[in-house]
Amino acid sequence: RLMQQADVVLYDNLVSKEVLELTRRDARRIYVGKQRANHTLRQEQINALMVELAKQGQRVLRLKGGDPYVFGRGGEEIETLAAAGIRFEVVPGITAANAAAAYAGIPLTHREHAHSCVFVTGHLKDGTMDLDWHGLARPKQTIVIYMGLLGLEALCRQLIAHGLAEDTPAAVVQQATVPQQRVVTGTLRDLAARVAEAGLRPPTLVIVGDVVRLREKLAWYEPQR
Amino acid sequence: RLMQQADVVLYDNLVSKEVLELTRRDARRIYVGKQRANHTLRQEQINALMVELAKQGQRVLRLKGGDPYVFGRGGEEIETLAAAGIRFEVVPGITAANAAAAYAGIPLTHREHAHSCVFVTGHLKDGTMDLDWHGLARPKQTIVIYMGLLGLEALCRQLIAHGLAEDTPAAVVQQATVPQQRVVTGTLRDLAARVAEAGLRPPTLVIVGDVVRLREKLAWYEPQR
Repeated sequence: RLMQQADVVLYDNLVSKEVLELTRRDARRIYVGKQRANHTLRQEQINALMVELAKQGQRVLRLKGGDPYVFGRGGEEIETLAAAGIRFEVVPGITAANAAAAYAGIPLTHREHAHSCVFVTGHLKDGTMDLDWHGLARPKQTIVIYMGLLGLEALCRQLIAHGLAEDTPAAVVQQATVPQQRVVTGTLRDLAARVAEAGLRPPTLVIVGDVVRLREKLAWYEPQR
Repeated sequence: RLMQQADVVLYDNLVSKEVLELTRRDARRIYVGKQRANHTLRQEQINALMVELAKQGQRVLRLKGGDPYVFGRGGEEIETLAAAGIRFEVVPGITAANAAAAYAGIPLTHREHAHSCVFVTGHLKDGTMDLDWHGLARPKQTIVIYMGLLGLEALCRQLIAHGLAEDTPAAVVQQATVPQQRVVTGTLRDLAARVAEAGLRPPTLVIVGDVVRLREKLAWYEPQR
């Protein structure tokens, strides 16, 4: 319904062409970027643009890949709208972790293997990863790292340094759910090398924990090459 | 597509009538329960039933509320199918945390307030909650507790005992996204009392962390009473 009503659609690079085509044919479509270090518009510009368009009386649809409230900066965008007194609705999405879990055959929780699941972002700050390693490296916990490819080696090293076994299973899922999906599995010790060898590229999701072992049994999606 | 193909549909109580009606009119629909302490079928029976129906040549659709791989025991169900050599597909869903975040106006992550988000289940084991309190009570982390209503008071007390401030914002969301949605906010100190007073009932989701404060600005869904 919202897709059909919008006059203007702001979308970023994780939105597929198929989804975009569900919007009204005569809607104006604005690509706002969102690739690492290659943002077409800065976040502040996106926020300002949405407010400006809405104030012109346009019905604005902001289309994001995944879920807006899990590392999607949806909170910041909506805060700007709220501050400007603009009415809005928020539609939840299937966040990358859920999508990758289903299509890579790696349940995020499992009564035998994982009682909790933590999501973090692996975006590097000034070349270092500023994560709460003690909070991550816990028994029976699945760790999901968004945007963790660049820091993968440091990530694995730190998790080992903070108590996880070197042979803890881990995986990198590239472009979950689409024909370009690729999954590389290994352990905290060898995952970074395997991923480099396979030449995986963003967008990826890193999953660490015993549940990764279930992929052997539960993988079903084998995209054609 | 899968909805239209299935000969038999196994669904539980979080699946809405509207969703169920999207399945084929002549499909057989089997209710398999899944309410706390009121399971119509035990998990093992559900697993066995799926295998039996599939072996009869039926196309079986297992419909769950939320995401199958986040506290949905989807892993166990699929393991049974895989062990029996039955082909399957897994479709990701919008897990309760994402749904509640969008409709209650509480982003799970936010650059200023939460850098990580952890999901746990609050199901009591023999009257006690067996959670990794040290892993949960971390700075700048949003905690989402599935099925935490019954143990809410113990939950809040333990988080305070393990280092979270008494005035950490926290919320309980009842039946997110539907007209019966109700949200009660408070702090770790007073949330349990407020929720009891409001008479919230399952299914609920508990959200703890600074992001809960954003609801004041970001709440937009006000179902009619």
